[in-house]
Formats: sequence, structure tokens, C-alpha cells
Amino acid sequence: MLKVIAQDFIRPEHIATVLPLYRELVEKTRQEPLCLSYELFVDQKDPGHFTFIETWPDRAALDTHCATEHFQRLVPQIDRHQSQPGQFLLMDVLPGTEWCPADHTPAQAEAEA
Amino acid sequence: MLKVIAQDFIRPEHIATVLPLYRELVEKTRQEPLCLSYELFVDQKDPGHFTFIETWPDRAALDTHCATEHFQRLVPQIDRHQSQPGQFLLMDVLPGTEWCPADHTPAQAEAEA
Repeated sequence: MLKVIAQDFIRPEHIATVLPLYRELVEKTRQEPLCLSYELFVDQKDPGHFTFIETWPDRAALDTHCATEHFQRLVPQIDRHQSQPGQFLLMDVLPGTEWCPADHTPAQAEAEA
Repeated sequence: MLKVIAQDFIRPEHIATVLPLYRELVEKTRQEPLCLSYELFVDQKDPGHFTFIETWPDRAALDTHCATEHFQRLVPQIDRHQSQPGQFLLMDVLPGTEWCPADHTPAQAEAEA
């Protein structure tokens, strides 16, 4: 399992321009068969700082995503409004800390406490 | 809903020291009633670069986490092995892109394609 954090920095005057592009990118990417999760967040201190948190089965699945029509069409349109280059971080889960939501619901934690 | 990315940079010779501290921090934090998710990842390019991805209902829940016995005890033990200060990013989901796993399973995406 591959976790990706991808950060974009958009010039303030172009935030309104990129929002519909981001929304389409999220919608289309989530329809990819290999996409396990794809979320987009905004920095509470900087409305032009966008962060994707993505989960893919492996690097090949990420490469397939980057080759899709929607990625190839939308990302260059977004990137032309960057204030600085994007940052990408590819990560593995720390062994021994794998997340299993079914085992760690808050309600269950309360019941066990 | 509050999303947090917290990055730690640990000196290479101390990675083995911090691993059990990290694992205890993850285990104890997931037992907090307000913890929605708490995951820990390692940079594929740097084994001393650790990244938490956390989900909390709100800032008050994060503050409660930071005041717990396990946080107050373990984080200073980890931080003394840092090669540089940690980085923290507090984020909101981009409106219109809320993630609903039940609506976006890969199997469903395939069926809809």
C-alpha cells in the first residue's frame, strides 16, 4: 500500500480558477478502479495551499493515475497557476502500525476503556 | 472535521530508538474516544522522515490529544532525537470533495464504468 501526500501552492488571485479543476480531478480520480482513497484539503492558514492525501495499492497504480486523460488534461491547467513548485511525498505505513478502522472505532475504544 | 499532517525528522542513528515510542503513541492515541484516525508513515526516500496523518472532529479534540499522558510522555522522548524541528499542517477538507468511502469503492467505480 502506497500513501501519497501531494502539495500544491496556488497564487491567491487564481484560487477561484483552480477550484473547479480540482473538484473535477477528485471526482474523476475516485472513479479509477485502482484508487483506494483520494482526498483534498486546504491549509487553515493559507487558502492557496492545497494538499492531496492519496492511497494506492502500489506505485504502478499511481503511475496509471498520472497517465489518465483527466490527470493529463487537468493538472497542467492547475499548475500554470502555481506560486511555487508542488511537493510530493511517497510513503509506506510504519510496520506494526497498520490502520484497521474496524478494530479502532472511537465507540469501541470507549467500551474498552 | 480537522485533518492534520505532522512530520518528524529523526537522526538516522536514533531511528531504532524512536520506533517503539512511535508504536506506543499510535496504539494509545487510537484508543482516545475522539480519535477518528491516526496513521504513521515513513518516507520511501528517507527512513528518518516520519509523517502522521490524523483525523479529529475539531481543534478541541486535537488539543485534548496533545494533553494526554501518552502524548506528554512520549513526544518529548521522540523529539530529543530530531534532526530538525517538526512540521505541522492543520487542514479542512475542500468543500465539494468530501470523501465518502461507501460511495466510492473501486468495485462500484468499475461497475459504473
